Amino acid sequence: MPDGRPARLTALRAALLAEHLDGLLISSLANIRYLTGFSGSNALAVVTASECLLITDIRYDEQAHEEAAAVSRVVIESQSLWTALWRELPPQGGVETVAFESAHILHRDFARLLESGTRWRWRPAVELVESLRVVKDADEVARHAEAGRIAVQALSVTLAKIHTGMTELAIAGVLESELRQAGSEDFPFKSIVATGPRSALPHARAGMRAWQRGELLLIDFGAVYDGYCSDVTRTVVAGPATERQRVVHGIVAGANAAARAGIRAGMTGKDADALARRYIDDAGEGAAFGHSLGHGLGLEVHEAPRLSRLSESPLPAGAVVTIEPGIYHAGWGGVRIEDDVHLTASGPVLLTDFTRDLLEVG
Amino acid sequence: MPDGRPARLTALRAALLAEHLDGLLISSLANIRYLTGFSGSNALAVVTASECLLITDIRYDEQAHEEAAAVSRVVIESQSLWTALWRELPPQGGVETVAFESAHILHRDFARLLESGTRWRWRPAVELVESLRVVKDADEVARHAEAGRIAVQALSVTLAKIHTGMTELAIAGVLESELRQAGSEDFPFKSIVATGPRSALPHARAGMRAWQRGELLLIDFGAVYDGYCSDVTRTVVAGPATERQRVVHGIVAGANAAARAGIRAGMTGKDADALARRYIDDAGEGAAFGHSLGHGLGLEVHEAPRLSRLSESPLPAGAVVTIEPGIYHAGWGGVRIEDDVHLTASGPVLLTDFTRDLLEVG
Repeated sequence: MPDGRPARLTALRAALLAEHLDGLLISSLANIRYLTGFSGSNALAVVTASECLLITDIRYDEQAHEEAAAVSRVVIESQSLWTALWRELPPQGGVETVAFESAHILHRDFARLLESGTRWRWRPAVELVESLRVVKDADEVARHAEAGRIAVQALSVTLAKIHTGMTELAIAGVLESELRQAGSEDFPFKSIVATGPRSALPHARAGMRAWQRGELLLIDFGAVYDGYCSDVTRTVVAGPATERQRVVHGIVAGANAAARAGIRAGMTGKDADALARRYIDDAGEGAAFGHSLGHGLGLEVHEAPRLSRLSESPLPAGAVVTIEPGIYHAGWGGVRIEDDVHLTASGPVLLTDFTRDLLEVG
Repeated sequence: MPDGRPARLTALRAALLAEHLDGLLISSLANIRYLTGFSGSNALAVVTASECLLITDIRYDEQAHEEAAAVSRVVIESQSLWTALWRELPPQGGVETVAFESAHILHRDFARLLESGTRWRWRPAVELVESLRVVKDADEVARHAEAGRIAVQALSVTLAKIHTGMTELAIAGVLESELRQAGSEDFPFKSIVATGPRSALPHARAGMRAWQRGELLLIDFGAVYDGYCSDVTRTVVAGPATERQRVVHGIVAGANAAARAGIRAGMTGKDADALARRYIDDAGEGAAFGHSLGHGLGLEVHEAPRLSRLSESPLPAGAVVTIEPGIYHAGWGGVRIEDDVHLTASGPVLLTDFTRDLLEVG
């Protein structure tokens, strides 16, 4: 597969030039991975017009060279990464004004810039790399698609194995084991497994409550493949569904379908959100859909763009986003149906292919 | 069980007084949980002489009141937590000089203090709450013990289920499922499951490599119970062990036993580290033990104190620490055996009771 990293570095350098910056100090590990390929848990990077410098520690010596040496000068530091930074950051060659990532550097480390980095002028910057990450290249989309496939496969096996009487934690255990079995290298967020009335809490974590006959079960989870995430939700019922469960589930499925059919690159986040919200409003359940329609996906599970009532920005072609309408009633329960789509110039492409009918399982 | 939170707030207020501070703005979620009990993922807290203020968002309305109202004034904010902070932080009543957590606040948020918090004098502080967290009370130790029990139970079942031919990811899946089944509410870190030569990499993550006959399998994982972590490592072999595997494993088991028997509160971190290091040195494997003996455990999986060659500080009575000697040979593999102990005034108490003999499984 083609390597997107040189193009990413070129685009970042153009952005630095436009901002009159000689370099960017990168402390976000996701941004470092995007630019250099390095996937370890401790690193700093600096991109200037002439080089991409990657500093990490001795544990990652072999890995850093393997993953990042094609586009970076790799420096292994046995003491502090900051010590290496002062030594390796070129004071000559016109590198004078350097930006740092205001949203990804702790005050403690910012203080180091002022104390020990006095040879450079430091400027706060936001979203210089994130704004590049929004648009996925073909390699990235392929990884999202594989993460989506893994999630759907694990869900399918899990639904055949679980039954009433199991606790939420035990159900999460089956699901996570199937995710591993299917090849997920990590869990992108803490699995939400919520039974009965707990399904009405949009951020319920799995707990010791047992799933009972007649109850809804909401499962919100994801997979990670070569760094890229999927994020999927389905809601099922234990045994025959009640009329109200069918009706609410049907409205959410309709809202999900309306948004998947109507979403387009170029539309604002607000207009995308409205595709599902209007459907739910028209069904008389508008007040029960309290959150946004979705968010961008990438190396992190929450990225730009936002699909919300407050977002006036157009959705970029090439973004991967979630579509996750829901209806929640305190004491009764909730239904959410979430899929991932790639917004191509010619329309949305679904990455998570799994039924949106109300399944009666357990 | 008695509630340790009032005593923690009293101790923090004494520390603030000693530093001539009128309050502390707390942005570390672990520190917020320790002081208030609130376990959500978005919050700010402020402790002054007269109150403990907890600010969170609308998703956590019910949870925040349930968990934290006994010791805090809970404020639910529908926009930005920072907006609520400026509104709720008392400008009167002598609250003028307020510290912030330099190691737990992003530059972006620090900039808000200077831009919008101009009515107060802001001072960076480090480890004001962390230094309290080192000494565990009886409730905390009971939770660590339960997290240790869950980890050991899951390991025991896992070792009976796994076999050669399984990938590291599939083995991690079995282990994590058993952790859930046994009641672990979370995974405190990404499980390390490393087969054959990969066991020589102290930070190997689980991958697609299959476990083969004759190979070592190193499993480093933990459980979480009511917020508190365990951290356990065992190394087993698939089928009959070779002489070298037996010898290396025996040295590591001896070093683990020497450290567990000899460690005492009051001893420096360096002296604790030496208990195991001397044993491994004497066996001629000193060069193959490249990391520290251990670290503190608590609401986070890496806390003070450090058990390392560089730590001259005495280990406090009441700390919970890991003891995890290892021997690693590139290309051959590695062995690590890790337990958790509570350092009481009358000696160490083991929290992770599981054999340290070399098990032949799979």
